[in-house]
Amino acid sequence: MKTRIKFVENMQFLGTADSGHTVVMDAPPSVGGNNSGAKPSELLLMGFGGCSGMDVISILRKKKQEVTNFEMNVQGDTAKHHPRYFTDIHIEYVIAGRNISEDAVKKAVELSLEKYCTVGNTISKAAKITHSYRIINEDD
Amino acid sequence: MKTRIKFVENMQFLGTADSGHTVVMDAPPSVGGNNSGAKPSELLLMGFGGCSGMDVISILRKKKQEVTNFEMNVQGDTAKHHPRYFTDIHIEYVIAGRNISEDAVKKAVELSLEKYCTVGNTISKAAKITHSYRIINEDD
Repeated sequence: MKTRIKFVENMQFLGTADSGHTVVMDAPPSVGGNNSGAKPSELLLMGFGGCSGMDVISILRKKKQEVTNFEMNVQGDTAKHHPRYFTDIHIEYVIAGRNISEDAVKKAVELSLEKYCTVGNTISKAAKITHSYRIINEDD
Repeated sequence: MKTRIKFVENMQFLGTADSGHTVVMDAPPSVGGNNSGAKPSELLLMGFGGCSGMDVISILRKKKQEVTNFEMNVQGDTAKHHPRYFTDIHIEYVIAGRNISEDAVKKAVELSLEKYCTVGNTISKAAKITHSYRIINEDD
């Protein structure tokens, strides 16, 4: 997998992936940027959420779960001193639907975090990853 | 640092960062997506390039280097079997300018990869990170 990252100006960079998509990255004004795009470390957390989310929605579909809304909150904490890295990351899965099985959600999340999610498997060598989930069962 | 990732449809997710920026993530058609955005694992590699690029351009500015063009190529390889993770990542820095000092580039890259880059410091616990650089000195 290849990506190309091009400097534009100040602290602004454009990342372009093999898939053809381009993402703007920038820093806040406090460190010389213009806040024109996501911070690089935010991309890491978003990539983790997207990666695990794709696993979970795929598995819930196979388990015939009727998901009507699905979102995740990913929070990361870094070490206080250099060399900084993510030491703790929490991912919360919020799944809404009809008759959603808690067992199905639990298994989908575990399969993603223990086996399928490449981003999670990579960053879990540095960060302690914890998770939680909320199931919102809507009335029929 | 907090991010929110919302499922849209098929394999499409929107990631929204604290900084207010939103990134589309998707998967290729081969795994049920529509390729409407970057893959989550591509975001990890782009985030690494952007993170290290911000360090390097900042340090080169402090060292009064006249950079006219700067880009990086980041390539990542994953393990062949589940649980997959990035095992090897190579980052190439391509820096063009006038009278660019190789020593300045070498030190900037080392400072970023060994100390300042949070994304690099996180993923280097899983992947072996190697680097190279090319300096293109333009005629005055």
